[in-house]
This record gives sequence, structure tokens and C-alpha cells, in this order.
Amino acid sequence: MIYLGVDGGGTKTRFLALDDRGRVVLDLTLGSSYLPAVGKEGVKALLREVVAHLPEPPARAVLGLGGYGEVASWDEDYRKAVGEILPSYHLLNDVELAFLGAFGGEEGILVLGGTGSMAYGRGPLGLGRAGGFGPLFGDEGSAYWIGIRALNLASRAEDGRDPPTRLQEIPRLLGKRDLLEVLAWLEEDPTLQRSRVASLAQIVDTLAPQDQAARGLLEQAAQELFHLGVTLARRLGTNRMAYMGGVFQSSFVREAFFRLASKKGIDLRSPLRGPAEQAALMARLGGDAERV
Amino acid sequence: MIYLGVDGGGTKTRFLALDDRGRVVLDLTLGSSYLPAVGKEGVKALLREVVAHLPEPPARAVLGLGGYGEVASWDEDYRKAVGEILPSYHLLNDVELAFLGAFGGEEGILVLGGTGSMAYGRGPLGLGRAGGFGPLFGDEGSAYWIGIRALNLASRAEDGRDPPTRLQEIPRLLGKRDLLEVLAWLEEDPTLQRSRVASLAQIVDTLAPQDQAARGLLEQAAQELFHLGVTLARRLGTNRMAYMGGVFQSSFVREAFFRLASKKGIDLRSPLRGPAEQAALMARLGGDAERV
Repeated sequence: MIYLGVDGGGTKTRFLALDDRGRVVLDLTLGSSYLPAVGKEGVKALLREVVAHLPEPPARAVLGLGGYGEVASWDEDYRKAVGEILPSYHLLNDVELAFLGAFGGEEGILVLGGTGSMAYGRGPLGLGRAGGFGPLFGDEGSAYWIGIRALNLASRAEDGRDPPTRLQEIPRLLGKRDLLEVLAWLEEDPTLQRSRVASLAQIVDTLAPQDQAARGLLEQAAQELFHLGVTLARRLGTNRMAYMGGVFQSSFVREAFFRLASKKGIDLRSPLRGPAEQAALMARLGGDAERV
Repeated sequence: MIYLGVDGGGTKTRFLALDDRGRVVLDLTLGSSYLPAVGKEGVKALLREVVAHLPEPPARAVLGLGGYGEVASWDEDYRKAVGEILPSYHLLNDVELAFLGAFGGEEGILVLGGTGSMAYGRGPLGLGRAGGFGPLFGDEGSAYWIGIRALNLASRAEDGRDPPTRLQEIPRLLGKRDLLEVLAWLEEDPTLQRSRVASLAQIVDTLAPQDQAARGLLEQAAQELFHLGVTLARRLGTNRMAYMGGVFQSSFVREAFFRLASKKGIDLRSPLRGPAEQAALMARLGGDAERV
């Protein structure tokens, strides 16, 4: 029999299928499975494609989906879409899945720093989250947040409001003439704006070794991410923390985050396993077993 | 004969018509005349409505329009639209018009703090601007900027990341359950998002007398606005400054701005006249006379 784990996301979705002995039968990454973006038909199309790649339909599937459990009408649409393609399935929120994978069902706080940011976890005092208010006024420390601030610092330096910084090279590195041309590029397609802004975080990381403003920005991102985590850790009565997401690929962010954790006596660990691995394992062990 | 002045804007457009003796024949405020928002037909419709209110078509008109002089294709569309309705006209950028009105054609720096923000002026060393990079990563100190930061401070306080603040009352004051419902309200209509966020600045001003975080935010807005102006003043070699826009209706912003100006030896003055008055006067005195 085949067991399918799904780690759903706004830009990509990873599918990991195991056989009875736990061997990987399929490890496939496709596009967005986020319902508000792709609709019920989009979710179904993704699942159909995956099933077509498998030697037989999965006996059980566990899916961590973006926004699941947050809006009743989305939940219903997700259930309908999945139910039409897969015979036996268990749905949960993508952040909850990442948390379960990080701590294998045990207590702790997971700090997520990707395109967005959030802390989610469980401790002796309960289950909770911090952050996750989205790009408009939240997502502190995320790749989007870093990108917006990098453009702001560049614009201030251009005006002479702040000292010069290598962040002013961002337009040239993007093949644009100036910041106003970067702005036009970001405004030309609202559906791509968020990921385009977030992609600037990598440029900031590249410039950081030679630029104080870029380093300061990454340091600040680490502080914001750590602040999300440590606030939630105190609230829930735990001091175990793990981190996940593209922003932590920056050694500047990672090292600043480590220093803060060490100073505050936080028991920092790498995630036990990734979300897709967690989902596949849950599918193989019974569909909704959280502590695996 | 009748002379028409137009102060165009993203949310409203003011029309001021004078007769030969300078008496006000019409003072009318209608909706947006911003070409990217209302299109050529929208601009024409506004002008037709104004002409219908006048006893005769205006002999000359001066119009300050949003974005004029920035994008060649917009300029052409603006000229076509205006030319179809008005026999004799002179177009200029809305910010340039506001600057001319503020200083009557003399040197100085105008700091604009409305939905957006910008400094624009002229000095011995030339003509220039600072800021004006838009809501995505600029517009520091604007009503939009204040609104975003108020929501951010409220969300941090909700999480326990920051101390409690009365800014947490924003959802209730808007008739919403919580910040996520405010977020949904802002996301439901992209065309209204900017003005809805900017409208929160007034709530911040109302809460400021009893709330340290709100006061701190308005103080910071004043610093950002002043920083725009003083950077440009130094760059252009002048120390004359005026200010304009809804954000300055807050006594907290105004007083902080005044203190900074006084400390830095800036010759701060009220605008000589408003943009619509400037445009009407220019129309009456010859169509493109800037120094009136």
C-alpha cells in the first residue's frame, strides 16, 4: 500500500509517498495548493497529477494545507476537493503540520521565517501562536519584511536621508534603472508582488558581507523572529524552540538568532523532521497519529 | 470672463473659478482626477460637470494633476482629455502646483503629509524632491504610514510582544471583532485599501492624548516628515520650509514638527495659498505665470 504526505504552501506543494516499509515511492514538488489562490479545481488538479505518478491510489493521505481550520468555507472546499480524488485522508493546517514535524508531537515553539513569519507551538500552558498577521502590517522578520525594508533603506540613501549603502545596487542587480522602475515592476502584477519582494531578501544576504545596512537589517529580522518565538515560549511555559524557513538560510540571520537564544536560555534545536516527512509518516502510521 | 483653477488629487479634485475681478464664481470639490484611477473618460466627465456649473466656459484654466510630467503616455492622455473640454489650458504636476502656491513662486521646500508623503522644492542649488516612493516601501510619515504602523503596534500588543496600548481598540472603533477582521476588511477591496489604511491616522490622533504608543507614533511621523524636508533643504541650499496635508491637522504632529524646525533653524511658514487658489490665480493672470 501507498501512504501520501502533503506539505501545502502558497508558492509550492511537496508530495511525499511511502510504501509499507517506509521507503520513498515519490517525492514531487508542484505549484501552489493554497485554496484562495488556486480554487477547488486547482487543488483537485494537483492531486490528480500526483495520483497519476503513483503505481496505485494512496491507501491514506495526510495533508497540511494553508489556511485550513481558519475559515469555515475554505475547510469545506478543501474537504470536497480532496475527497473527490483521495479515498482516505486527514487534513490539518500547514503550520500545525510543520510544528508537529519539528517536535514529533512533543511540546515546543516553532518559529517560521519564510515569505511570511509566525511562531506556533504548544507548552504546559496551552497551544498558541504569535505573529502571522500577513504582509500588510505584520510578518516581521520574514523575507517579505526584509525586502520591503531593503527598498526603504535604498530610497532613503538615494534621497540623502541616510548614508549611502550597497542596498542602492538593488535596481541594477534586478536589471532595472532605478527604484521607481523597481516599484513599477512590483506593481505590474499584484499576484507576483509578494514573492518578488520576498526574493530581495537573498540579495540583501549577498550584500551583507560588504554592507553595514544590509547586515543590520538581517540582524533586525533575526531579532523580530526571535521575539515572536520567545514571547510565545513565555506565554505557553516552555523553553524549547525550533526554526524553519528560507530566511534562516542566511548565516547572518541564523547566527544572530542563535546568539539571542543562547543569551535567553532557550533550548534551540533543529526540526526533528520536515512537514512532508511528518505528513507521510502520519499517513503510514494511522492517518491522524500526531505523536510519531 | 471666467478663469478656472484645478487642484487634482487621488481622492478628490477641487475646482475654483474666478471672474475678471478675482471674485469666486465657483468652488466645487468632486472625486478623483487621477488618470491611472479614473481614465481619460473619468477626467473628461469631471471637467464636463464643472463646465455645466459655470455661466460660460472658462477663458483659461490651469490644472495641477497627479502624476503629470512623470509618464509620457499619461501626459498625452491628460492633454487629450483636457483639450476636448477646455479651449485654453495649462497643465502642471499637482505637487509642483502645491509648491508654487505655498511660496508664490519663490524658493523654499514644501513638505506634503497626506495619504502619501513627499518633499518638493527649489533653492539656490536647484529643483528637487525627496521621498514620494509610494505606500509599498516609502511615504514615511504619511497617513498611510501611520495607519500601517498603528495596526502593527496593535498586533504586537495582542501577541504580548509589546506592552498593551489603546491602539488595540482600533478593531472595536471600526466595528470589527479583531485585527484579523480588520485585515480582511482592508484586503476585500484593493482600490479602497490605501484610503482605508490612511483613515486610521485620525483614530491614532484621537487616542494619542491617552496613549503613549499613539503619541510616539505621531511623533515619529513628524520626525520622518521633517527629515524629508530638511534633507532636501540642505541639498538645495535653502532654509525656508512650509507644510501641507491632512497629517498636519494632528496637533501632535504639528507641534513635534515645529519643535524640530525651530531646533534646526528652519524658517517655517504657512503656505501662502492653497493649490486651487494658486491655479485659479495663474489662470486669471495669464495661464502659466508661476510667480503670482
